[in-house]
Amino acid sequence: MKQYPEQLSRSHKKYLQDLFPGRESSFDDCTLLACGVDASQRHARPLALVRPQKTAQIAELLKWAQAERVPIYPRARATNKVGNCVPVRHGVVVSMLDMNSILDIDGRDFVAVTQPGVITADLQKAVEAEKLFYPPDPASMKISTIGGNISTCAGGMRAVKYGVTRDYVLGLEVVLPGGDILRTGGRTQKNVVGLDITRLMVGSAGTLGLITEATLKLLPLPETSASMLVGFADLEGSLNGAEAVFGCGILPTAMELMDHNTIRALEMHGEVPWPKGTGGLLLLKIDGSAESVKTDLKRMEEALRTVAVTFVEKGGGSDQERLWELRRIISPAAFNLGPDKQGEDVAVPRGKVAEAIRGYHGIGERLGVIVLCFGHLGDGNIHVSTMYDKSASGSKEKALKAKQQIFNLTLELGGTLSGEHGIGLTKAEYINQQLDKNQQRVMNGIKKTFDPFQIMNPGKVV
Amino acid sequence: MKQYPEQLSRSHKKYLQDLFPGRESSFDDCTLLACGVDASQRHARPLALVRPQKTAQIAELLKWAQAERVPIYPRARATNKVGNCVPVRHGVVVSMLDMNSILDIDGRDFVAVTQPGVITADLQKAVEAEKLFYPPDPASMKISTIGGNISTCAGGMRAVKYGVTRDYVLGLEVVLPGGDILRTGGRTQKNVVGLDITRLMVGSAGTLGLITEATLKLLPLPETSASMLVGFADLEGSLNGAEAVFGCGILPTAMELMDHNTIRALEMHGEVPWPKGTGGLLLLKIDGSAESVKTDLKRMEEALRTVAVTFVEKGGGSDQERLWELRRIISPAAFNLGPDKQGEDVAVPRGKVAEAIRGYHGIGERLGVIVLCFGHLGDGNIHVSTMYDKSASGSKEKALKAKQQIFNLTLELGGTLSGEHGIGLTKAEYINQQLDKNQQRVMNGIKKTFDPFQIMNPGKVV
Repeated sequence: MKQYPEQLSRSHKKYLQDLFPGRESSFDDCTLLACGVDASQRHARPLALVRPQKTAQIAELLKWAQAERVPIYPRARATNKVGNCVPVRHGVVVSMLDMNSILDIDGRDFVAVTQPGVITADLQKAVEAEKLFYPPDPASMKISTIGGNISTCAGGMRAVKYGVTRDYVLGLEVVLPGGDILRTGGRTQKNVVGLDITRLMVGSAGTLGLITEATLKLLPLPETSASMLVGFADLEGSLNGAEAVFGCGILPTAMELMDHNTIRALEMHGEVPWPKGTGGLLLLKIDGSAESVKTDLKRMEEALRTVAVTFVEKGGGSDQERLWELRRIISPAAFNLGPDKQGEDVAVPRGKVAEAIRGYHGIGERLGVIVLCFGHLGDGNIHVSTMYDKSASGSKEKALKAKQQIFNLTLELGGTLSGEHGIGLTKAEYINQQLDKNQQRVMNGIKKTFDPFQIMNPGKVV
Repeated sequence: MKQYPEQLSRSHKKYLQDLFPGRESSFDDCTLLACGVDASQRHARPLALVRPQKTAQIAELLKWAQAERVPIYPRARATNKVGNCVPVRHGVVVSMLDMNSILDIDGRDFVAVTQPGVITADLQKAVEAEKLFYPPDPASMKISTIGGNISTCAGGMRAVKYGVTRDYVLGLEVVLPGGDILRTGGRTQKNVVGLDITRLMVGSAGTLGLITEATLKLLPLPETSASMLVGFADLEGSLNGAEAVFGCGILPTAMELMDHNTIRALEMHGEVPWPKGTGGLLLLKIDGSAESVKTDLKRMEEALRTVAVTFVEKGGGSDQERLWELRRIISPAAFNLGPDKQGEDVAVPRGKVAEAIRGYHGIGERLGVIVLCFGHLGDGNIHVSTMYDKSASGSKEKALKAKQQIFNLTLELGGTLSGEHGIGLTKAEYINQQLDKNQQRVMNGIKKTFDPFQIMNPGKVV
């Protein structure tokens, strides 16, 4: 099989400059360095950066790239935490940021059609202005794009009630390696004609084709929402609280957990509303009509009264933002516990969360690193951050040991190495621990069907 | 490529009898005739029927079938309306009805694990006893199975709020052609490791492998529900009503439409609660906590007051069943308008429903056949039944002409040939009108990856 080129030939470069004139293509060191990194902090230098303005250019590019065996690395805001945007086999980085138009918002079809470079929060604002709702809300939503969210099947806090990005993608336009344009799904809410290629593309991390347009499902905008921060003496208490909420027949919009180490980090960071000695927190949100939110909030309070709650603070409207601000500052606050961080986004079956978190804490204690657990309790997707000091001798090794042990425990409990971020580069070496040979054989077969010459995001595990 | 055998050889038969002893295999005419038909009323005679008791038997069977090129036709209750259970290339029908155990219901994980032969309504009853909820509710749910529902990505009335079967499948055990056992997904609510093979299997109609176990997502059981039947002077009125409901921020559990011909059929069938001259009906359901259902119901009534409602009847608890009974008897009642029926389950973008239904009526009027439109307005999935009298000369041809024109209009409006039933045999000749060569190439490539020798449900379009 033809090898990937080490360098672009003069004619390659000319081809790219003709197809992407002026600022649409770049070959200078500074630009190439900047577009070779993502939020994983891994890095590789690509051979070129191009900025397509329309699908036809991408079709031409992927025809050429397949013929010339040039790796293609799609990229938007590169908030990916596992290295999925890093051009490890060099090749051409394709920035989708110029294809950033919202093409249609249709309040009768309950559908939005967008180009991939649209920022998720911008789309949300635009649809909310028409009393419509696009629920997926990854933490990065103010900077990450719809195209990136689809490529990674982004989750978020509202996933408990509303599901993840997959659940909102009705149709896609995808340029395939070789340049053919594939249209999947459509504008209908239900569609069972042929195999479900639309959802296969979601989460495929640019390894099957390049997404150039998405048709998204919208919901009617809930009239209002309310939030509640609830304190408990310990982790067990907060997990009992979570069960009491589900048990009264309410599916909250969001249900976030903070463990005692997270609480400690927040207490070191600034003022907090809860009393000293709080050992577990639940942050809950519900939404709906004004009346139903009021009655459901009351019902949730009553349900929580059956468990040992030590603290409750409620908020409605914009007032609840101060509660969510506490959730959002966890990441910076964590550095109060250690200068270096290793973050995982494992998920376990919901009923195994207590055992998992106790186990993760135990791993930290045995290895002498601090483990924080917080995040999406409602769907068992726990963010586990190992805080350490890499300047201390052997500390990095301890953190890596903790990672392996966290993964081992997660898999023993029937969990998954990633609930939101994917595998990419940073977890590639662990993939065989989760996926057996049959699973990998089927996935590799599908990859080969779409991309026989391995030009799409090569070097990655989806 | 080796051909499918016309008949089973003596050694084939012995092999099957050894693997499926006693009543687990059948070769008699009567049984083979009975298991060669499904709700499409198409028919083909298989070479054998087997009734596996466990996955290991199926793995052996699929190893043998691949080596011997014997077609395999998975089957459960065969409620499929498009012929997906019909063994058109003969081969072996595999009845999954003996693998009918609910293996686990876990109220902490919010997960059920079942064998494929479990009746959907039985699973629902079992989980509801533990205050849990499995939302997908195809009309056939009292007789169809979880395995069949997954194979077709069954929808139902509650899809407006809760989505379809795809949204509730977390993991699968699948026997692949050749006998390897593939495990996809798992017990976690979120999982982004590798390509999404789980959802690719959903709706693949037995063409990729044979599903032997499913891990399903459950929700907390809503405390209560209430329903409302609302009458309007005409179709336009009911569509305005639907918009008013969505516009007040409520996502109803179900939103069903009945057009004037459906109303006429029901009026001919028996007593109805609405006044004469009703030209459109909406049947709405909401669920949640007792308080929120009460307040949402009131809000929905207020929203509907802004449009020209001619009739309202509400029901809560078991009282609402009499309203839903009217919905359920549409199918038999339709025969008041003609002795023969041709049923489609097209879906159009939600905002195109009015135009579509007016168009379908026009097609019927021009061709001299009666067209009824009813069903899942909330997600644009309209059941279109053409009633005719095949004993009248040229009438069957008119119905077929209507079918083609209904499909043409649906596709012109950005719709899909099937929202729930699939393509199978009955719509196979229309598939090129919806899926272009790129879509079919990708689907065929995936099929080849899973099933290189075309032994799984051959002769079908998914």
